[in-house]
Amino acid sequence: MTMTSTDSGSTPKPPAKDPWDLPDVSGLVVGVLGGTGDQGRGLAYRLARAGQKVIIGSRVAERAETAAAELGNDVEGLVNAECARRSDVVIVAVPWEGHAKTLEALREELAGKLVVDCVNPLGFDKRGAYALKPEEGSAAEQAAALLPESRVTAAFHHLSAVLLQDPEVERIDTDVMVLGEARADTDLVQALAARIPGMRGVFAGRLRNAHQVESLVANLISVNRRYKAHAGLRVTDV
Amino acid sequence: MTMTSTDSGSTPKPPAKDPWDLPDVSGLVVGVLGGTGDQGRGLAYRLARAGQKVIIGSRVAERAETAAAELGNDVEGLVNAECARRSDVVIVAVPWEGHAKTLEALREELAGKLVVDCVNPLGFDKRGAYALKPEEGSAAEQAAALLPESRVTAAFHHLSAVLLQDPEVERIDTDVMVLGEARADTDLVQALAARIPGMRGVFAGRLRNAHQVESLVANLISVNRRYKAHAGLRVTDV
Repeated sequence: MTMTSTDSGSTPKPPAKDPWDLPDVSGLVVGVLGGTGDQGRGLAYRLARAGQKVIIGSRVAERAETAAAELGNDVEGLVNAECARRSDVVIVAVPWEGHAKTLEALREELAGKLVVDCVNPLGFDKRGAYALKPEEGSAAEQAAALLPESRVTAAFHHLSAVLLQDPEVERIDTDVMVLGEARADTDLVQALAARIPGMRGVFAGRLRNAHQVESLVANLISVNRRYKAHAGLRVTDV
Repeated sequence: MTMTSTDSGSTPKPPAKDPWDLPDVSGLVVGVLGGTGDQGRGLAYRLARAGQKVIIGSRVAERAETAAAELGNDVEGLVNAECARRSDVVIVAVPWEGHAKTLEALREELAGKLVVDCVNPLGFDKRGAYALKPEEGSAAEQAAALLPESRVTAAFHHLSAVLLQDPEVERIDTDVMVLGEARADTDLVQALAARIPGMRGVFAGRLRNAHQVESLVANLISVNRRYKAHAGLRVTDV
């Protein structure tokens, strides 16, 4: 089983790397595409409040600037293309309906960047939310297909936008499942999640297993209705 | 949005029922089909140890009897059909490969019973585990299609068979996501999960949202490999 890029063929295995030995990401610029939506605003706010340099992107510069001013914490607002160009890590928090189109248009600006897809393809009817299955398997795999020169990961699916955006909330006690193909990339996203008080980033597999992580949000919506909660997830025993 | 059977049309809503007001299930007989496999044995052991009357089923009576004797705690072992007939609640813990065939053969015995599907349709290759998508949407929906006269729910997907079976482990601190169409049924399964020390049963939606809950086991397998853990899940804020 190939688990890391160093674990190949019949050569002797090096000692396993400590999964909690994560890089310092405090100097990276984080862009948030769809940064004027609830999820994007919430993530931008939490990361900026934790000391990260954050730029939010929107199709319209003015909307990005207005949202950024509201978020404070030195958040900047730019059009999506400029946001992508200026950032080291780009979180994709656009609505599912605009996902493919937005990413296709930013292929060049996102080349070489670490892309973090947090989009949940869901449908809604009178019985509640349900999973939509993208042709590529998941939103994250669609991003990977559309952005062959980017490093695509998936994370931040199960966070409550309400809690993220509430300035009275000091800690958000939840885990962030991080998926991706390259350990250096998932380690970096895990470290980014860990910047937010109460959160841990937990590696949770390759992109081919992103669909169930994305669509589990439909279940959390059911939980929220039944228990009048803002549910998240903790992974136990890690 | 119809959330419960009492919440219909334009009649005034009754006060919401407390979601933690669950029935007493201590008198129910629980059958476990596939009770000689790791997951089935583990669940049978935990429920019996908690004081529940448990019968494990197998295709071969002798194998069921042997496994039952090993589990102690008054567990009985019977052939699948007899196990189903004698039980009030029947947990389906057979391998995915035998799922449809086993249930088809037990349609009569399972009529009127509360069926709890805990099967995870997964494939494995050298890169690890990945989700299989049943034609019906999920293992649970396949069960519902094959058992029109049973009350089908889904639960107990994310439990470590290692922890379940280890007699030294006193508590298993994890939540059990329970899915189903009828509140009386999911309440009952939640109450059953809560019999095991450390566990809670949490309502997590309808059967149409079972696929992602079943296939999330592929992600937990990745977690277990990376962190050398027996991962489970807690739902936060409930």
